[in-house]
Amino acid sequence: MDARATVDSMLRADLRGRTAYGAPQLDVAVALNTNENSYPVPDVVVEAMTRAVEVAARGLNRYPDREFTALRGDLAAYLSRSGTPVTTEQVWAGNGSNEVLLHLLQAFGGPGRTALGFTPAYSMHPIITTTTGTAWVDGMRGVAGAGAFDLDAASAVGQVRQLRPDVVFLCSPNNPTGTALDLDTVVAVHDAAEHALVVVDEAYAEFARPGTPSALTLLADRPRLVVTRTMSKAFALAGGRLGYLAADPALVDALRLVRMPYHLSTPTQAVARAALAHADLMLDTVDVVKDQRDRIVTELARMGLDPVPSDANFVLFGGLADSHVTWQALLDRGVLVRDVGIPHYLRVTAGTPEETTAFLDALAALVPTHAGAAP
Amino acid sequence: MDARATVDSMLRADLRGRTAYGAPQLDVAVALNTNENSYPVPDVVVEAMTRAVEVAARGLNRYPDREFTALRGDLAAYLSRSGTPVTTEQVWAGNGSNEVLLHLLQAFGGPGRTALGFTPAYSMHPIITTTTGTAWVDGMRGVAGAGAFDLDAASAVGQVRQLRPDVVFLCSPNNPTGTALDLDTVVAVHDAAEHALVVVDEAYAEFARPGTPSALTLLADRPRLVVTRTMSKAFALAGGRLGYLAADPALVDALRLVRMPYHLSTPTQAVARAALAHADLMLDTVDVVKDQRDRIVTELARMGLDPVPSDANFVLFGGLADSHVTWQALLDRGVLVRDVGIPHYLRVTAGTPEETTAFLDALAALVPTHAGAAP
Repeated sequence: MDARATVDSMLRADLRGRTAYGAPQLDVAVALNTNENSYPVPDVVVEAMTRAVEVAARGLNRYPDREFTALRGDLAAYLSRSGTPVTTEQVWAGNGSNEVLLHLLQAFGGPGRTALGFTPAYSMHPIITTTTGTAWVDGMRGVAGAGAFDLDAASAVGQVRQLRPDVVFLCSPNNPTGTALDLDTVVAVHDAAEHALVVVDEAYAEFARPGTPSALTLLADRPRLVVTRTMSKAFALAGGRLGYLAADPALVDALRLVRMPYHLSTPTQAVARAALAHADLMLDTVDVVKDQRDRIVTELARMGLDPVPSDANFVLFGGLADSHVTWQALLDRGVLVRDVGIPHYLRVTAGTPEETTAFLDALAALVPTHAGAAP
Repeated sequence: MDARATVDSMLRADLRGRTAYGAPQLDVAVALNTNENSYPVPDVVVEAMTRAVEVAARGLNRYPDREFTALRGDLAAYLSRSGTPVTTEQVWAGNGSNEVLLHLLQAFGGPGRTALGFTPAYSMHPIITTTTGTAWVDGMRGVAGAGAFDLDAASAVGQVRQLRPDVVFLCSPNNPTGTALDLDTVVAVHDAAEHALVVVDEAYAEFARPGTPSALTLLADRPRLVVTRTMSKAFALAGGRLGYLAADPALVDALRLVRMPYHLSTPTQAVARAALAHADLMLDTVDVVKDQRDRIVTELARMGLDPVPSDANFVLFGGLADSHVTWQALLDRGVLVRDVGIPHYLRVTAGTPEETTAFLDALAALVPTHAGAAP
């Protein structure tokens, strides 16, 4: 038996034949595929991060603060700026929101339990779910036809009542479709879920259109509700790997049972804190990105394509004869976007004005031969 | 129902009533409880880390290299210095060896599977195992009486043959007992395990006494064998959170199915690489620490206590009437050691000569009233 066959024979049965998650990490001129913020970290913040690591480096022989209390305090202060007070005890963090979601599924999922998400949504939700041995069910977002990507509240409530899952994922703004949920839907799903954990993934919250409320406002007296966030998107800190959540302190406490001790390195904590100390500066590009997002929606509609309205830093658009062919043609022109596996659709991140122009120009040249499928 | 009761009702059944892992993080003069290296990072390396983060910080808006290829190359080069060539493809890493072990259990453990460890050993092995829904079995290290902490090869083989586990943990040098395994024992357990993954946890390998071989030398043609290491101990980089393993490339490949994408932050990768670029300097204190370890063994024996010979940077010692009472009395004198839950025993990290003196002086003052139990 060769090595691969031996390893396969030891592998968990449900993992055999799977391929690893992986957006291509290609070296292209215009990378608009992973919803990063295209703007580099400002010099002032680079300096602050450098000084923070310099101070911390000498003491790296010691373990980090296992409770990352100062960082949790900073995250709580940042969330509280929205007008909803959030305390240090309500905050938890991990190496990206993926790890925060993993902790939730490790604590509240597991064999014999089921998680429900309304797809298409964040592709890691089912992966994280099944990684923990939890069963995953693809729920439907709505009815076929126009607006099919909006989550239909009555349908969602019905699916929850029928399935009685242990964990429900909501995603607002939803990735890859882009639209935010109204809070009535969140409350309706939460109440219908009765005994289940309800996770509202708000990775893109800072990009939402004016008047879009956060599920943070619903946390009081709802210990089954969790709101996850990340510093990877609006905060322009994807490389810093800092995802977090807000929830009842009792729920946060349960995550200590499943996290690996000292999971956040001292450099990770120091860099994230330096970014949070300059939150306004780090978020300075959000308005430019939102303008580019709106520009993409307008221009794609003008081209006769079918863009989905967006509260995030990306736009899902349909109307393509063959989305993979268009994906490759854009890549051939130096523009990397995301094929999220929805026929006739692609997803593009809103970047700088120059990147957006490059994308729009490349796509405009393709539309005459690539447009096709009815919406 | 109050919030805690609600959260408890959602918690995975086997987690209810558990308490989180946690060595006390107390602010004491002499902290000898978590086997850190007491020596701070040298100025030259602090400077290198600072420059590395400065260069990386501007690009933190982008995700890290998901494959951390450069870091894996550096780790492979470091391991290859031992004389056994290790390639980049054989190396995997995580936020501490805890995460590396988690990835192994996620891929090769799970519900319906069993992991066997020979206890007392690293206390996280059973925690990581059960976190992934894998059953844990406490194996015995040997026969009662003198040398009871040495792993008896024939006994270990017999236990493996009888239980037929899916994962076997070996720990060399063993924590908390301190002694290394001979390779004949590793091979015997590996061969007896037939179809199981065999993990040799070598977190303390760099402290081993001369002539102690590493299981790295056994990796060729053994795709079921894994050697885990860490930069937290000899490398004096506990705050950097960088654990790693070497194994067959096919086994490493399987871990990509369970790791969260981008699990190692750019700052974590940059700081670890800066440390590896100065490996000799970072490891410069290993000999001093080994001298202090040997001094502790000698002095404790002279006090009439029962120290276990050690290949690590700590010493387990028995002969105490009540280990918790002695633990508290040492803490009252400003010396924090570890109560590992073995009656009549405590574990102390070998620190600087000054820290070792403080520990020995404090203990010497206690021995007349605290010594007691027969070995």
